[in-house]
Amino acid sequence: MPVIDKSKVPVKTGSIYPEPYASQMAGRSSLRLGDAGGLTQFGANEVILAPGALSSLRHWHHREDEFVMVTQGECVLVQDEGETLMRPGDCAAFPAGDPNGHHFINKSAAEARFLVIGSRMNPEKATYSDVDLEVELKDGKATFTHKDGTPYQGDRT
Amino acid sequence: MPVIDKSKVPVKTGSIYPEPYASQMAGRSSLRLGDAGGLTQFGANEVILAPGALSSLRHWHHREDEFVMVTQGECVLVQDEGETLMRPGDCAAFPAGDPNGHHFINKSAAEARFLVIGSRMNPEKATYSDVDLEVELKDGKATFTHKDGTPYQGDRT
Repeated sequence: MPVIDKSKVPVKTGSIYPEPYASQMAGRSSLRLGDAGGLTQFGANEVILAPGALSSLRHWHHREDEFVMVTQGECVLVQDEGETLMRPGDCAAFPAGDPNGHHFINKSAAEARFLVIGSRMNPEKATYSDVDLEVELKDGKATFTHKDGTPYQGDRT
Repeated sequence: MPVIDKSKVPVKTGSIYPEPYASQMAGRSSLRLGDAGGLTQFGANEVILAPGALSSLRHWHHREDEFVMVTQGECVLVQDEGETLMRPGDCAAFPAGDPNGHHFINKSAAEARFLVIGSRMNPEKATYSDVDLEVELKDGKATFTHKDGTPYQGDRT
């Protein structure tokens, strides 16, 4: 049945980031709509941002194209050049390899949602613009490193 | 600039279908949003259906996954099992190779829109469920045939 019953799609919460970054993702959840519909060739996820929530650390993908359309509420897209307020129907495209990192912040008082589509490259790498962190994704496993390639152990405070 | 200014995206109209099918696509147009944003790995198009318009002939893809989210108004998804009314936020997924053809019809009095994502396989093949028509897509060229493989010349009436 290709119509997706969103009420039956598990709400994914939490983050695979190492600390102290995982804690910064509170208030973000997502529905893996494409997976729920049996798709394998790309990801199609609806991201739900509570007021104040971030979609991710600001990042860019080395090999994967990414496309976003805001579907509910409003959120702010942050890139190198600053902030853009985005509302339902507004779209952005992030071509693979463009080192202009992005993420979304819900600065409103209401829930915001966007649909995000991403290719599924294996292996893939993402770089986080504002912190000393990168991730390599291979065969379903994520390995976080510092930008010099050394393993990430978490910040010692 | 990854934010897409929809007002500057060309509105694509018309159909590559042979007659008598091309004429049946009047009232359908689309915005190639992913292309406008520099993406190459998948297509992300907003399809605009005037009242009464069809999105396509009812079809299924042999190698490409497809994902749809309705973004404005309402339209009817038609599949083997019948019709499903879909409204903004409603989604459907069409895995590659599933021979349950689909299309959308705007049976309302207002414009409807949906976002459609599709992989970009080369070559690709699509089969039209309700008519004696298939298409092979290779290196940007579409070749329409009857289902027995003979070239399509259009219906002689």
